Amino acid sequence: MRDVFDHIDRNIQAYLDTLARLVRQPSIAAQGVGIEECAQLVARMLQEAGARVEVLRLPEAAPLVYGEFPGRSGKTLLVYEHYDVQPPDPLDEWASPPFEPTVRDGRLYGRGVADTKGNLVARLCAVQALRQVRGSLPVTVKFLVEGEEEIGSPNLHRYAEAYPDYFRADGCLWESGSKDHHDVPNLYLGVKGICYVELVARGANRDLHSSMATIVPNPAWRLVWALATLKDRHERVLIEGFYEDVEEPTPQEMDWLRRIAATRDDPALLRDLGIERFLLGLAGVELLKRHLYQPTCTICGLLAGYTGEGSKTVLPRVARAKIDFRLVPRQRAADVLEKLRAHLAQHGFADLEVVPMGLEDPARTPPDAEIVRVVADAAREVYGREPVIYPLMAATGPMDVVCGRFGTPAVGTGVGYPGTNVHAPNENIRIQDYMQGIKHVALILERFGGSGA
Amino acid sequence: MRDVFDHIDRNIQAYLDTLARLVRQPSIAAQGVGIEECAQLVARMLQEAGARVEVLRLPEAAPLVYGEFPGRSGKTLLVYEHYDVQPPDPLDEWASPPFEPTVRDGRLYGRGVADTKGNLVARLCAVQALRQVRGSLPVTVKFLVEGEEEIGSPNLHRYAEAYPDYFRADGCLWESGSKDHHDVPNLYLGVKGICYVELVARGANRDLHSSMATIVPNPAWRLVWALATLKDRHERVLIEGFYEDVEEPTPQEMDWLRRIAATRDDPALLRDLGIERFLLGLAGVELLKRHLYQPTCTICGLLAGYTGEGSKTVLPRVARAKIDFRLVPRQRAADVLEKLRAHLAQHGFADLEVVPMGLEDPARTPPDAEIVRVVADAAREVYGREPVIYPLMAATGPMDVVCGRFGTPAVGTGVGYPGTNVHAPNENIRIQDYMQGIKHVALILERFGGSGA
Repeated sequence: MRDVFDHIDRNIQAYLDTLARLVRQPSIAAQGVGIEECAQLVARMLQEAGARVEVLRLPEAAPLVYGEFPGRSGKTLLVYEHYDVQPPDPLDEWASPPFEPTVRDGRLYGRGVADTKGNLVARLCAVQALRQVRGSLPVTVKFLVEGEEEIGSPNLHRYAEAYPDYFRADGCLWESGSKDHHDVPNLYLGVKGICYVELVARGANRDLHSSMATIVPNPAWRLVWALATLKDRHERVLIEGFYEDVEEPTPQEMDWLRRIAATRDDPALLRDLGIERFLLGLAGVELLKRHLYQPTCTICGLLAGYTGEGSKTVLPRVARAKIDFRLVPRQRAADVLEKLRAHLAQHGFADLEVVPMGLEDPARTPPDAEIVRVVADAAREVYGREPVIYPLMAATGPMDVVCGRFGTPAVGTGVGYPGTNVHAPNENIRIQDYMQGIKHVALILERFGGSGA
Repeated sequence: MRDVFDHIDRNIQAYLDTLARLVRQPSIAAQGVGIEECAQLVARMLQEAGARVEVLRLPEAAPLVYGEFPGRSGKTLLVYEHYDVQPPDPLDEWASPPFEPTVRDGRLYGRGVADTKGNLVARLCAVQALRQVRGSLPVTVKFLVEGEEEIGSPNLHRYAEAYPDYFRADGCLWESGSKDHHDVPNLYLGVKGICYVELVARGANRDLHSSMATIVPNPAWRLVWALATLKDRHERVLIEGFYEDVEEPTPQEMDWLRRIAATRDDPALLRDLGIERFLLGLAGVELLKRHLYQPTCTICGLLAGYTGEGSKTVLPRVARAKIDFRLVPRQRAADVLEKLRAHLAQHGFADLEVVPMGLEDPARTPPDAEIVRVVADAAREVYGREPVIYPLMAATGPMDVVCGRFGTPAVGTGVGYPGTNVHAPNENIRIQDYMQGIKHVALILERFGGSGA
């Protein structure tokens, strides 16, 4: 691969320019800003690199950009990415404007450089490099680039049902990943699912003077009492049957967890977060096990009545809680939603409205899948470090829709590092990581193609 | 009094103009808008009517306007009023601008016309009418007009300590009151107290991605669990000792409650509020007894994490609840605050911050006080209806600071009616009620002066 890597090194400026071109195009799914324009730009960039491109469309959904590069072998590698980004707020905390990509101190700053336009372009550049140096690709590469990942991929399952052939592959590079504090590349073999709901309690038809609280029901109290039945102070979720599909890690997975735990710096994380201890006082491998293998029930938002400065004596007309359940393999989002509704009814809270706001099932890649070995071997070679493999990650993505349902094993890897500021102001990547990421993908393509079929 | 009442009838336009002049001056305590200007205007209006006026000042407090009219007898009547008003928001729901007083359909519209500039000016006009027709007043009348009532009178106790002589009187006309749905004047002999606090739970030093909820404490859950220990689903406050100073109404008070209950239209109130039943399914005299004689623990506001449209997966760094306790006679606000702190500590929530945001003690006038008889008799004569006397009202005011501590019996009466829209858009009074209110006060002054001393 010396020839390909040299080519990549010589083209660093072109690869940064390509990324800057994409970052310059805002594409904020939550606000509907620049989505169509960004889809068109991704399509053009794939086309310019030599792909057969289709911009797939469904009613009331952001376009899904599909690009296919033919390969020499019969094998297919899927690249799942998204062109949408998080909102850049708060704007005044950015040292340079979020949609004006800027290089400082060997880093490229801009919204989306890490999550995940940097990974999308790195993979595209790897394909280009191989094609330019070798004339063709060892495997067929399919790019699936969606525009709604940051709002929970609400329409991706409809695309998967309408265009199943575009999803099928022998392995998948999942959208992103990063190095850890020791510069060790971390790989991810699965994601948690999510069941995000809003609970709404309603009282009178308007906010009232709080002196009426003697005789008029208060929806804020209804909401608090209902929430208190969902989880106890020992962090145990009390919804009937919630844990019945939760599995303990296997002995092999526990081995991995011990290895991962040894790479983590819990005291540094505590200091960084400004807390004295982790939940339930956990540490080490037990902390990690809980982090990856336990589902959650999290209050993400509470809103009722007067929330401004000072005091206002108001009896609220409505109270709302946003709650997410992060789900581990074998739990199903629709099942958890049903159990939540049954729980509320059984505990006398049938009057609360349950509004589903995003359901995604968890997904997990078998650790012995070929793509896992290929990605890990390539990482070892390119980064010169033994990669750490996470059997799951604590976060969520549409891996079940893109891969799980098609039986495609997926591995997450990418160009991030711990200072990347994903979803935050001053999102950035290190240019060195970006170059290594391109080489890593090029080597994966070479090895995945060469290793059989 | 025929001569005085005729004089009042002849001067209706001048009395409306005087009120309009005061309403036109914004004076929003919560926003610090126009407070100094309005204090000056009230002082000028009192001076023009012949009072000896002082604008009292304390550091970091709105001015307290004091005006004294000498009387023939040695008796003194205190008039407690305030020149500040509620914020006019939401502005777009006003049919005419809140600070441009406008007459429509026999009503005067504008922020503060009922609460309580209308009562302030009605009382001033009554004094003027008596002085003009009779040459002097039968009693000394002291006007105490504060500028912070709508934000809980946080500095009034300091004025009472600094200027006690300005507060002492033989009876007090409390700031406001209204007719009920049957056009029967309602009088009020007491107010509830209040203990308003904000509970604050804190977690990490910033909002985190909610996938971290496996291992990082969530202040929103801490807050919910703490709140759930404060009150149970049967509306029983669980703070140790909370009810120990709560008294049952006396047999005489129960007689009053039965009489008041007979004047109320509970089904109409349910329809108006858009609810199917009152709290605990109560009705009639039991409902009224709870409304007036039971303390409350009310969540006035909840705020944590993401509260906008749609979903955001956030683990909040802070969670806040605003809570008011309405207190009945013999409960003390400082004592309830102390019991709340002890309760939280005892239940494992010492980490929650308790921020006091307004403490006022309840107050009650003995039903056999002379001023009560005088106000009721005058109401019977002016309105031609038997007034309904509320031994307490469910709302709060600084009656303990202004009257209770000085042993001054106080009666609430005023120019409102059920459609007055206090604290809401399109606040208004009926011009007829305003004229009757002026006559009512004139007759009270006459009778209170003539009835002894």
